[in-house]
Amino acid sequence: MGLLKETTAKINDLDHQVMKQAEERVNHLIKPVGSLGKIEKLLIQLAGITRNPFPEIHNKAVIVMAADHGVYKEGIASNPQEITAIQTKFFPQGATGVCAFAKQTNSKVVTVDIGIDGDVSTTPGVIHRKIKYGTDNMVNGPAMTREEAIRSIEVGIEVAMEQMNQGVNLFATGEMGIGNTTASSAITSVVLGLDPKETTWLGANYPEEKMAHKINVIRKAIQVNQPDPKDGIDILSKVGGLEIGGMAGIMIGCAANRCPVVMDGYISAASALIASLIEPKVKDYIIPSHLSVEIGAIKALEYLGLKPMLDLDLRLGEGSGAVLAFNLVEAAVMMNKEMFTFEEAGF
Amino acid sequence: MGLLKETTAKINDLDHQVMKQAEERVNHLIKPVGSLGKIEKLLIQLAGITRNPFPEIHNKAVIVMAADHGVYKEGIASNPQEITAIQTKFFPQGATGVCAFAKQTNSKVVTVDIGIDGDVSTTPGVIHRKIKYGTDNMVNGPAMTREEAIRSIEVGIEVAMEQMNQGVNLFATGEMGIGNTTASSAITSVVLGLDPKETTWLGANYPEEKMAHKINVIRKAIQVNQPDPKDGIDILSKVGGLEIGGMAGIMIGCAANRCPVVMDGYISAASALIASLIEPKVKDYIIPSHLSVEIGAIKALEYLGLKPMLDLDLRLGEGSGAVLAFNLVEAAVMMNKEMFTFEEAGF
Repeated sequence: MGLLKETTAKINDLDHQVMKQAEERVNHLIKPVGSLGKIEKLLIQLAGITRNPFPEIHNKAVIVMAADHGVYKEGIASNPQEITAIQTKFFPQGATGVCAFAKQTNSKVVTVDIGIDGDVSTTPGVIHRKIKYGTDNMVNGPAMTREEAIRSIEVGIEVAMEQMNQGVNLFATGEMGIGNTTASSAITSVVLGLDPKETTWLGANYPEEKMAHKINVIRKAIQVNQPDPKDGIDILSKVGGLEIGGMAGIMIGCAANRCPVVMDGYISAASALIASLIEPKVKDYIIPSHLSVEIGAIKALEYLGLKPMLDLDLRLGEGSGAVLAFNLVEAAVMMNKEMFTFEEAGF
Repeated sequence: MGLLKETTAKINDLDHQVMKQAEERVNHLIKPVGSLGKIEKLLIQLAGITRNPFPEIHNKAVIVMAADHGVYKEGIASNPQEITAIQTKFFPQGATGVCAFAKQTNSKVVTVDIGIDGDVSTTPGVIHRKIKYGTDNMVNGPAMTREEAIRSIEVGIEVAMEQMNQGVNLFATGEMGIGNTTASSAITSVVLGLDPKETTWLGANYPEEKMAHKINVIRKAIQVNQPDPKDGIDILSKVGGLEIGGMAGIMIGCAANRCPVVMDGYISAASALIASLIEPKVKDYIIPSHLSVEIGAIKALEYLGLKPMLDLDLRLGEGSGAVLAFNLVEAAVMMNKEMFTFEEAGF
């Protein structure tokens, strides 16, 4: 049995017993019942994930999966493809957006080359798990083989487990990949049964007047490949991306090891759709972060039943929004730990 | 000249020169232009407030103003009035919601009795600035005199300045006061020219079926007192509250000293409306935090042109949402400080 199957088989339901216990306490804290809204729900989710009514966060990491997209050749991005490799070199230097926010949240940035169409092998601090030099152009056929898709997910699982072995118990998914809102729109369209017009937006400042072209490219990719909307691996291989598979693997690896994972924006949402098709229980282990400005992200979140907590008009990616939500996860832990119950307060 | 007039006279425009300088740098950071959304705008605002293109946060404090409301007698709250005094004693013990979040954000909670209808004078850690034992019942006449209203604002200015002298350079406004969503609805109705039906919601779990009563009480208070919608002090004295005046004072004190201040939910929004009527420039020094579930708060924020960054279904008050936004202010500072510009990156 391969690593993916093995890991997926380990995923269980949240522990509803412990969640009840946590909810009981939250309802007895010295505040009007329900008045801390999503922070209360987050604590209960954390309790159910970790099987601990007093969950603790020890070490936090955002995993940045970097890869390129063959569909870039169709002119669906405004930045040169080389930016993927160039920007990847700046993550270990702490110089990008997600690095700044990681510093604010006292968390670690882990950078993985899972499929850059370029060479970053001599860059210190980048983990090398390249599956191929970018995906193939999905308007001409599948972006990758089914085996490569599975392998991309397994890389995510492996990286998550390595980090857990180093003491990380709160994850965020991040990515770098010029063209990856195109793949995310394709995935979201297939899973939600929507025309790409309803899931496609600007990405990294793609000109609005060329939007019809981006949409047509996505339509063509779906038409040529006919992905099976019920088969996450089929969708990932045909119209997905290596970093999207990698992040789906982080989510699956976290769920299998009862570890919370915060998702970022649109690309992470596409990964969550793939991961949830492979094993629907994965969803319960995912913590949403921000409301992306990408229309497809909003729809994907609704489909997954996840309600964002940050409204910051972010569209950078890299895991930047997810890292900021680490603070809210810690706030939930603090609420549970620091606040008196009515009984403790002597009411 | 009194402290309020003196302080208000010191309030200047944001420094647009420095803001331009900050914006220039933000637009050159290695990310698509505008892709960090509200965090970018926040940094530019901070630069304009502090006159520093590289703003720094040293020490953070949330000021919790506690006071009671004479209108409580009309049955507009579901909690006993004594909760104001009881809960106030728990702030210095670190046992309430805002305390938990302050711990997460490494900030200090400063508790002020500005008008509790009870005695907390022996409670260590509470600053005593009681103006009176709760406001008068505003359905029978003004909640307080004009002099008391001015004094409540001045207490806020004084407390802010004391904290600045101790090195605090980022503030949040918080409060504790049973019945204070009623006063906030009254203020919002008067300033925005809306019927209380459009500004009134549940507060701390007030039963929905009694909402018509709460609305009628607010209508009556406005009718009896006829506050001048252009005169912030008149509105505060007639249908406001001592803690609302105190928080308006924090905002005015911060603006006069070029210090950013994060506002919390509905009660803070009412304070911001009062402060902005006294001096419209105060608005520019206020950083919004969360989207309250109170319908009046949403309208007050729109009126003030402030866009919330957190969407957490909070309705606790105490400054809890504002404190969580401290993280976002720090994230903006980190973005500016840690990220490379294209030039620094060698593009």
